[in-house]
Amino acid sequence: MPGFALTHGFLFHLQFGAMKNNNGKVFLVGAGPGDPELLTMKAARVLGEADVVVYDRLVSQDVLALVAPGVSKIFVGKAPGNHHVSQDSINEMLVRLARSGHRVVRLKGGDPFVFGRGGEEALHLVRHGVDFEVVPGITAALACGAYAGIPLTHRGLARQLHFVAGHCRGDAPLDLNWAALADPDATLVFYMALAGLGEVRKRLLDAGLAGDTPAALVESGTTPRQRCFNTSLEQLVRTAREQRITAPAVIIIGRVAALARELAWFAADGEPQPALLESNAGAYAG
Amino acid sequence: MPGFALTHGFLFHLQFGAMKNNNGKVFLVGAGPGDPELLTMKAARVLGEADVVVYDRLVSQDVLALVAPGVSKIFVGKAPGNHHVSQDSINEMLVRLARSGHRVVRLKGGDPFVFGRGGEEALHLVRHGVDFEVVPGITAALACGAYAGIPLTHRGLARQLHFVAGHCRGDAPLDLNWAALADPDATLVFYMALAGLGEVRKRLLDAGLAGDTPAALVESGTTPRQRCFNTSLEQLVRTAREQRITAPAVIIIGRVAALARELAWFAADGEPQPALLESNAGAYAG
Repeated sequence: MPGFALTHGFLFHLQFGAMKNNNGKVFLVGAGPGDPELLTMKAARVLGEADVVVYDRLVSQDVLALVAPGVSKIFVGKAPGNHHVSQDSINEMLVRLARSGHRVVRLKGGDPFVFGRGGEEALHLVRHGVDFEVVPGITAALACGAYAGIPLTHRGLARQLHFVAGHCRGDAPLDLNWAALADPDATLVFYMALAGLGEVRKRLLDAGLAGDTPAALVESGTTPRQRCFNTSLEQLVRTAREQRITAPAVIIIGRVAALARELAWFAADGEPQPALLESNAGAYAG
Repeated sequence: MPGFALTHGFLFHLQFGAMKNNNGKVFLVGAGPGDPELLTMKAARVLGEADVVVYDRLVSQDVLALVAPGVSKIFVGKAPGNHHVSQDSINEMLVRLARSGHRVVRLKGGDPFVFGRGGEEALHLVRHGVDFEVVPGITAALACGAYAGIPLTHRGLARQLHFVAGHCRGDAPLDLNWAALADPDATLVFYMALAGLGEVRKRLLDAGLAGDTPAALVESGTTPRQRCFNTSLEQLVRTAREQRITAPAVIIIGRVAALARELAWFAADGEPQPALLESNAGAYAG
């Protein structure tokens, strides 16, 4: 291939390729939503084989408990607006650890490639000649749908499924295609949207989505502290405020959200039955 | 609550609630994409404890191998247009098995609540007084993104993520909101879209998405037979035909699809390095 010696990637390869032979490697691993049993078997194996684990705020303590004793655990937690360690520092740390020959697990809540910045880390690794693998994880939308009793797609109710970050680092906040999202035949799942909930509600209403469109707030999904509240687009902000919903939470908007009234099955600690906002929901879910 | 005795759900509860005491239960379990290590630990545990497993065509043999010897495995595989067992029959089978006191695993490829008709089965169970749980699984989009080296979201490239079924049972085929999907700032993942690929391409082009929008075809994602091809919206059908892509496959459309050229890391059986359509891709990924 005569042209390819001049490509960007090939130059990186020439510059850094020789550094590959320390046998260090980075595994970008999805830790899932919180319940440690929702880790994949591969993630559990890779965690057990790690020399060092670099982890985020959204990784649960129960998952970290799977790391072998004596293995370094480095917290690089990021909260919106409060970066504990910058993304650049994390990128450099991963390269440095791998070049020292370590088997590094970069552990992220949910899935590394869904609002997890795993792509940025992977690009940094490949451009510095570091081997990596990606282990997918159960992303919050799937986890909260399953545990709140909300099928994200359902015949006759939702034929499309949209995942949206309510807070986008680096981009203008909530600079989204609202006309596209205001679709009564779709399910919308908003990640990290509590701070922007008023704007989400207003933009969707302005774009024509009906105020009585069902919505659900799922807080701490899959954990013993899970709480799920059925509401509507119109009442979304009011419900969140009244119930004092805190992060981590996902917002599910669309006709399927109402199915939680029948399908809620997961009882949090100390609850005799699934807790839903409507007091008559127990008759369905009991 | 004076009103609630008259609700639909409550009547079902009165009619069937008494049948709950046989201790049968149905677990709607996501089997993930194919690699048995991508099963969650909970799915593996529940499978190991099952009395009977009712499974689909998309569940891999490697996953079925985790079922204990002597446990009944019932194939109810569905292929588009060729229903082996009707959805109604499956629903009734699950109720019958649970009422006989069985611990039933209903095993579905991917995630039960993402294009898996798990919601329909859950509604049938709850309306017949059968206890159930939902165990989420790694859906094909997440799996294929991770294993093809395509971050589904990426800062500056994709701020929204849409999952779409290329084939919708019961709905008009491809009766979708194409104007919404033709968004250069989004990632689109089409499931079960090989048969409708020409229409997907035409509708997206007609709706204004640029022909040079990157696209990727991922066949048999996460398995030793995985093949991933980089192409464009314009060339999508041609690439699928030339490479003889067969199901199961997902189509990823959007700027992130081009990142596979750098980020492909998973080498299928017998391949020295990740196989991509462009012959110079190895310089990046090697």
